[in-house]
Amino acid sequence: MRASSLHAPTLRDPPRDAEVVSHQLLVRGGFIRKSAAGIYSFLPLGMRVLRKVAQIIRDEMDAAGAQEVQLPIVIPGELWEESGRWAQYGPELLRLQDRKGGDFCVGPTHEEAVVDLVRRDITSYKQVPLCLYQIQLKFRDEMRPRAGLMRGREFLMKDAYSFDVDVEGAKAAYEVMRGAYTRIFERCGFDFRMVAADSGNIGGSLSHEFQVVAQSGEDAIATCDASGYAANVELVPLAAPARAEVDPKAPAPEVVDTPGAKKIDSVCKALGIGPAALIKAVAFVVDGQTPAVVFVRADRDANEVKVKRHFNARTLELADAAWFAKATGLKPGYIGPLGVHEAADKAERLLVAVDAEVFAMPTAACGANAVGQHRTGVVPSRDLAELPAADLRFVVDGDPSPDGEGPLRLFRGIEVGHIFYLGTKYSEAMNATFLDEHGASHPFEMGCYGIGVSRIMSAAIEQHHDERGICWPVALAPFEVAVLALGKSDEEQAIAAELYETLRGAEGLDVLLDDRPTRPGVKFKDADLIGFPVQVVVGRRASEGFVEVKVRATGARVDVAIEGLATQLGRAIRAARDGSALHLELGA
Amino acid sequence: MRASSLHAPTLRDPPRDAEVVSHQLLVRGGFIRKSAAGIYSFLPLGMRVLRKVAQIIRDEMDAAGAQEVQLPIVIPGELWEESGRWAQYGPELLRLQDRKGGDFCVGPTHEEAVVDLVRRDITSYKQVPLCLYQIQLKFRDEMRPRAGLMRGREFLMKDAYSFDVDVEGAKAAYEVMRGAYTRIFERCGFDFRMVAADSGNIGGSLSHEFQVVAQSGEDAIATCDASGYAANVELVPLAAPARAEVDPKAPAPEVVDTPGAKKIDSVCKALGIGPAALIKAVAFVVDGQTPAVVFVRADRDANEVKVKRHFNARTLELADAAWFAKATGLKPGYIGPLGVHEAADKAERLLVAVDAEVFAMPTAACGANAVGQHRTGVVPSRDLAELPAADLRFVVDGDPSPDGEGPLRLFRGIEVGHIFYLGTKYSEAMNATFLDEHGASHPFEMGCYGIGVSRIMSAAIEQHHDERGICWPVALAPFEVAVLALGKSDEEQAIAAELYETLRGAEGLDVLLDDRPTRPGVKFKDADLIGFPVQVVVGRRASEGFVEVKVRATGARVDVAIEGLATQLGRAIRAARDGSALHLELGA
Repeated sequence: MRASSLHAPTLRDPPRDAEVVSHQLLVRGGFIRKSAAGIYSFLPLGMRVLRKVAQIIRDEMDAAGAQEVQLPIVIPGELWEESGRWAQYGPELLRLQDRKGGDFCVGPTHEEAVVDLVRRDITSYKQVPLCLYQIQLKFRDEMRPRAGLMRGREFLMKDAYSFDVDVEGAKAAYEVMRGAYTRIFERCGFDFRMVAADSGNIGGSLSHEFQVVAQSGEDAIATCDASGYAANVELVPLAAPARAEVDPKAPAPEVVDTPGAKKIDSVCKALGIGPAALIKAVAFVVDGQTPAVVFVRADRDANEVKVKRHFNARTLELADAAWFAKATGLKPGYIGPLGVHEAADKAERLLVAVDAEVFAMPTAACGANAVGQHRTGVVPSRDLAELPAADLRFVVDGDPSPDGEGPLRLFRGIEVGHIFYLGTKYSEAMNATFLDEHGASHPFEMGCYGIGVSRIMSAAIEQHHDERGICWPVALAPFEVAVLALGKSDEEQAIAAELYETLRGAEGLDVLLDDRPTRPGVKFKDADLIGFPVQVVVGRRASEGFVEVKVRATGARVDVAIEGLATQLGRAIRAARDGSALHLELGA
Repeated sequence: MRASSLHAPTLRDPPRDAEVVSHQLLVRGGFIRKSAAGIYSFLPLGMRVLRKVAQIIRDEMDAAGAQEVQLPIVIPGELWEESGRWAQYGPELLRLQDRKGGDFCVGPTHEEAVVDLVRRDITSYKQVPLCLYQIQLKFRDEMRPRAGLMRGREFLMKDAYSFDVDVEGAKAAYEVMRGAYTRIFERCGFDFRMVAADSGNIGGSLSHEFQVVAQSGEDAIATCDASGYAANVELVPLAAPARAEVDPKAPAPEVVDTPGAKKIDSVCKALGIGPAALIKAVAFVVDGQTPAVVFVRADRDANEVKVKRHFNARTLELADAAWFAKATGLKPGYIGPLGVHEAADKAERLLVAVDAEVFAMPTAACGANAVGQHRTGVVPSRDLAELPAADLRFVVDGDPSPDGEGPLRLFRGIEVGHIFYLGTKYSEAMNATFLDEHGASHPFEMGCYGIGVSRIMSAAIEQHHDERGICWPVALAPFEVAVLALGKSDEEQAIAAELYETLRGAEGLDVLLDDRPTRPGVKFKDADLIGFPVQVVVGRRASEGFVEVKVRATGARVDVAIEGLATQLGRAIRAARDGSALHLELGA
């Protein structure tokens, strides 16, 4: 394609709302434009990248035996009633009514729609295993869309669903998808980790995330270098540390005045201690009604996934302080584990748990359950022994790996894929059954498998950029090579055009010819910003048979003879289409 | 692909709501399944056809210099407020609110979204011409979705939008698209006509439809064989026929009693005349408030496009009888042109027009503007001379072509494409402007160009089917060849598998191997129903080196040697990928 007829409007400045670098570069490079909060249009360059990502996914899905379908975008609400999610899903589900008053939603995920499709036609064990996938725009009405394509409301997703007769079959389907996902993200050129994950609202009991390593990632991942263990920090189980030994001579706890000190900082200041010597209270609402309080060391964070599981909660939210005070009679800011039941109204309704690490504290301070007062000299293993201990905190850097093989290291990641074993959650609720060889009816064993297609664009940029712009891996680049025609003479223009034709024709590369009547500086800047993996600069020495070749990712530049260049470039670029790094050896 | 792992559930019976053959065969053949009224899922076979259609469109759009983008599906209502269509569009626009109460719609068309995209980045005459397109699911909340994919609510569409600096540029863009559309529909293997069309709600002043010839089509088209003239019947102008000469001896009209005779049939019966001798009244509401009545020969139909234009109406609807009676004092069922103003209350508000053909009637009957009475012996050219005459009726078979070259022939068509010259309707309303070479600001001249991608599937089946099923043209077939492995012996199975591998590998064809452990009859029936263009039956004579080849469209069957078959099939099928008929000469 010729840049003179390509609609690729580049911008000098990033939009004001763009904080992460991929968002800035996608807008500046002319890949996307915002239409509304979390809703984007894709310009031609963005479309080219999207289509390359989609093709990689399609290849690997087809190779894994999955079959492409297209489910509706506007889905009947009655299917969601059947699964129970019409009530459960919350405000992220974009609900609407058609002209006849029927309930519908814009699909955020398609378990219901695919189960409805399959249950009509699949009635026998002979018709499975089956795995269906689609690549489609989805809508999730996020409260705070952010970071461009990283967390949009409307986004392109690949979703796949597997149907099997038994758990073994479903697990086998899961393993096939795990392999396909690994190949997909390798082909995208990602540095990524597959990590154990929580299955959240989707349901099911086995789940892995594919996390692209990036500072700007929303997710925190824990890995153990020694054993290869990797999991979302939400999920890392922590063994209870040994309880502190009780010094028989230790004095009893004392109540001290801490007027106005409700926050951790001010309490620590008032008491002259660090947060590692303080116990904090975190208040929750379980199942929308029951108050619960969890105690953790004040320098740790309560892990909601663990808390939810511990209380066997259907839903869990942080409690509003006023609501909690009214519901329990406790004083937010001054809540402490010692005597918490005695201090609470309707104590039998209050759920309480203490993180196991608290019992390893030799001595601690905590709220005194009275306004303006805290306790010091609390010995948890002596004074709190009757309270239930549980693993309730987030892992931190250096915590021991659950497999005992060494310390955990934390890093941030962008979730680009997520696979779930679902079991029979949806097939039972929606009565999707098959007859086995004896004529008995069973619900399908299911799995579901998602990839954020548009999010992959962001993640790739987070991993591949520098201060000048994007450094696309060859596999995802909107064009693999840009030929920058700098020369103004007809001869130089003709040389550039001929090279362009050879590269796209004989070599079959994706090539952009920058034939715009602009200054060379503009062409260099745009080429670096947009991030073509290879730039061929056809300038003054072209008439002598030489051009400059620049490799975007390394910044290497070399003057080379035009003779033989196309063949070399073709070979190197085709070899890098599998996601591996570009190796271009252009000799002197 | 192997049929044993393809999800292609065929059905013996069509669904009860399927009246047209393409709807029946798409469901029976396992291409689509209904999710809700007018909302369909595409099964793997349906997806394969959709993707082939989309690829043909993409090829020709790219070749025409259009660039692929992706606009949002969920579009901010404020853009529609800007264009004025938020109020105008009516209940087909699926409106919704997000969690923050913002107005959005699910896009039925994307003029607003694309103008918003372009106006941010294109500010200079140097940046155009520009033509952007997308292939995307759209939603139009039709009152009566019907005929499967022919008139669905959710449907896949290709929409393109051109931006130019002046009318000449816009007209040139229109011509380029006209050529691209012609090539697209040729490549789909259609018998189609490009016809002049009304531009309807989209606006603009120049428009053509691409109509696939089919009995089941919703649209009626008039063509003149002699001149090649073709237009939607809505648009065909009809010259006024000569007024009937007045016989000076003709008696004055008489009022006769026709008690209870309000409908044409009963009036004709009561008066002993045919409908060609009766004048009927058709009542309308203009711009939602003004009553209007149009008189046409009772065997003709009033053409709303012409009526709307005649009254210079913004909107036009058929009037509710009770409303019309109340608004005018006239008596529905007995309204006639003679004395209509005298009979009406507030006659100055009533709009009246008479179709020009009425004045060619030597004598006529009509309503007497009194309940239970009609007039006979009306001589329109004498008695109705003061009423305005206009071209208000639909063309009928045999009417003269507007170019005077001969009679018109009517046929029915399925609209698969529609192109519009829009002018500055949207760019002015939404302030999308560019600066010319003198620094003056102008709105863009626009065009828009739509193709019903999913509707093409239906239209292709309407043109290519028989009593056994679909006869796909090679260019659109889900698989180009089906190899039916009938033999049960390992040797025969191996021969089928080898042929399959050769056809897909060396010959590069799209091949399905029917390796299912079912009876031969089932395989034959499914192959005919699904409509593979070529079927290769590997049966008992395979071990002797012979198979049977069947061409689906012609039903021709011939036993041929396996030796050399793949090469011949490959050549013939590749040649038919451009939309031409399959020529397969398999010698004895």
